[in-house]
Amino acid sequence: MTTTPRDPDRLVLFTDAVVAIAITLLVLPLVDVVSESVAEHHTSVEVLTEHRPQILSFLLSFVVIAQYWVTHHRMFENVKAYNRPLTVVNLAWLLTIVFLPFPTEMVGVFSDDVFTTLLYIGTMLVSSLCLGAMTLIIHGDPEIGRDAAGLGARTVVRAMAPAGLLVVAFALSWAFPAVTYYSLLLLLLSGPINRLAKRSQ
Amino acid sequence: MTTTPRDPDRLVLFTDAVVAIAITLLVLPLVDVVSESVAEHHTSVEVLTEHRPQILSFLLSFVVIAQYWVTHHRMFENVKAYNRPLTVVNLAWLLTIVFLPFPTEMVGVFSDDVFTTLLYIGTMLVSSLCLGAMTLIIHGDPEIGRDAAGLGARTVVRAMAPAGLLVVAFALSWAFPAVTYYSLLLLLLSGPINRLAKRSQ
Amino acid sequence: MTTTPRDPDRLVLFTDAVVAIAITLLVLPLVDVVSESVAEHHTSVEVLTEHRPQILSFLLSFVVIAQYWVTHHRMFENVKAYNRPLTVVNLAWLLTIVFLPFPTEMVGVFSDDVFTTLLYIGTMLVSSLCLGAMTLIIHGDPEIGRDAAGLGARTVVRAMAPAGLLVVAFALSWAFPAVTYYSLLLLLLSGPINRLAKRSQ
Amino acid sequence: MTTTPRDPDRLVLFTDAVVAIAITLLVLPLVDVVSESVAEHHTSVEVLTEHRPQILSFLLSFVVIAQYWVTHHRMFENVKAYNRPLTVVNLAWLLTIVFLPFPTEMVGVFSDDVFTTLLYIGTMLVSSLCLGAMTLIIHGDPEIGRDAAGLGARTVVRAMAPAGLLVVAFALSWAFPAVTYYSLLLLLLSGPINRLAKRSQ
Repeated sequence: MTTTPRDPDRLVLFTDAVVAIAITLLVLPLVDVVSESVAEHHTSVEVLTEHRPQILSFLLSFVVIAQYWVTHHRMFENVKAYNRPLTVVNLAWLLTIVFLPFPTEMVGVFSDDVFTTLLYIGTMLVSSLCLGAMTLIIHGDPEIGRDAAGLGARTVVRAMAPAGLLVVAFALSWAFPAVTYYSLLLLLLSGPINRLAKRSQ
Repeated sequence: MTTTPRDPDRLVLFTDAVVAIAITLLVLPLVDVVSESVAEHHTSVEVLTEHRPQILSFLLSFVVIAQYWVTHHRMFENVKAYNRPLTVVNLAWLLTIVFLPFPTEMVGVFSDDVFTTLLYIGTMLVSSLCLGAMTLIIHGDPEIGRDAAGLGARTVVRAMAPAGLLVVAFALSWAFPAVTYYSLLLLLLSGPINRLAKRSQ
Repeated sequence: MTTTPRDPDRLVLFTDAVVAIAITLLVLPLVDVVSESVAEHHTSVEVLTEHRPQILSFLLSFVVIAQYWVTHHRMFENVKAYNRPLTVVNLAWLLTIVFLPFPTEMVGVFSDDVFTTLLYIGTMLVSSLCLGAMTLIIHGDPEIGRDAAGLGARTVVRAMAPAGLLVVAFALSWAFPAVTYYSLLLLLLSGPINRLAKRSQ
Repeated sequence: MTTTPRDPDRLVLFTDAVVAIAITLLVLPLVDVVSESVAEHHTSVEVLTEHRPQILSFLLSFVVIAQYWVTHHRMFENVKAYNRPLTVVNLAWLLTIVFLPFPTEMVGVFSDDVFTTLLYIGTMLVSSLCLGAMTLIIHGDPEIGRDAAGLGARTVVRAMAPAGLLVVAFALSWAFPAVTYYSLLLLLLSGPINRLAKRSQ
């Protein structure tokens, strides 16, 4: 297998298609809920009130996937070519995106259950690790990234900040189950960490 | 986060993919209906006659999403670059499109029920508000829109006309439940309003 | 609404996405069949033997949609711009493609039932009518079609031949229910008709 | 029907869209499993432990489709135009990809059952045969392939190596059912065979 860098257009299009499908499939369990509700003689209002966790998990995952797509999009604006490692990590990242509707449905059904929380945050963690690894590949190889400038400490910190915060979130939700998904609010620290990393340069 | 304008191609492709998937997924509840009908020993003709509301809601939502796509398409022909606000509103618009199969299925099952009617029209209202907001961003910023000419009264009226008409439709269907989805016929006034806004310039 | 011709790229991409999704969704009822079969304690071989009609209707619709896509593809290679009528007919054609998984599932479940046969052939007929109308728009307007040469009798016959053959197929399957889907073999006459139309020029 | 070579962009985009959808749909049976598990009063951990075969078959098919896509991608980088035979074989290949979620679900449910194993490996075999045939078309016709150099023994061996190995895997799993899917490990020999074919040139 060669690792000659190649034009990233088709990789990006395929990636976008997979992400677009995954984000749209999130609605299917909600659609199924309607016919089940009819079988249980629920009213139209009850369809929403009885399935609030599923609607919330739909919204959460929509935001998560949309945010990941925006991040991937910004990252690949800097990519002029790609090689085999970038393809493999990108496919691994796609696997986490394709898989996400499964923990999403788990969250909709088991809500604050510890195992479910950890499965969801764990999936996000693997996804962020893949994005971080891609950032490092892109920044570290001038044949791949347009502004590749080597892997300084600042670059590594910025690339891995979301994954690092998710490790902490994972640990928090494990140690203190009452925290549930609120540990994800730690991700709001990504911005300040980025600014700190920039300033300390 | 930077707000430097960037090439809109990938945003448009991603948007088209999501809309294409959402419009195609509308058929899945109809497909499920067939196997249910068999379990209930319906004849092939009864599959259609017993599920007329679901077939009608499928057709309604197909037309609604197709019309939204055409509007989005025309709007983005005028876009030469995009920034963060346009991305965020576009993703919010996509959320309404991805969500639409859910109220569509509600309509197919609960038909003329008031809450269902308001949920459906409300989803369209949020969708139109997002499209209106995007129009204002595009027309107001010469770095974004090719023919950006500032936000005159005419532009604002034209951008917000569909959302305004949907507010009236929502109120009508709430106050007079017998009106049901016929209040959506108000949208036919969009054309005349546009022409009036043009003439009064 | 303006009818200024515009670049067809985005229309074609959106169309391809919808067709790609519709053709891929055809497998979902087959996937559902597996879990049902388990509930009924079928063996793995019985999953296939008991659901032969559904597997055949999956294959039939795959071939039908693939053939329609190839036809659409060839037609649009000749398109340099598009206007509102072409957009509207194209969306109507997409509606028939999006709808097709429904009659496909009907065929899988009700097999040779007359109403089901007519629903399936009728959907194909409307689809072919839309393709024929698009051919006429493209050949009739030099602003749209690259080789537009007006609407001679030959062009109209070639554009409408598949729809015409499907009208005959529809009538045959109605009058002689024993014919079932074999009336679709009439479509094999499209080639000879095209050649005749060419020669008689 | 003409066989004039044409620009492959739209064929590639359509292909990518279909593959992207097929790979993403793999998660749907996992999502359905969640609601079934609730009906059976399973805990969140049991959703995973009770459905391990379905999760494994999801992962297997994700890797299989991703690997096929990478192969198709590399092959088409060498394509400058396409004709009717390439279109037809490509659509046949897409049929195997669209079909794959069905044997995948069979594997998830019937696991090591011989018939299921053979159905899965058989689908892969047909898929690899199509890829091999496309390679031969591309290498054999200088109007199609950029580096077309005729069909030497080396080219044929390399193009057909995966299909050949899958024939052996199919036979192994048939003769010795205890082997199950481990016969697929034979595919790891593709690399060495390629290198041998290169050296013996």
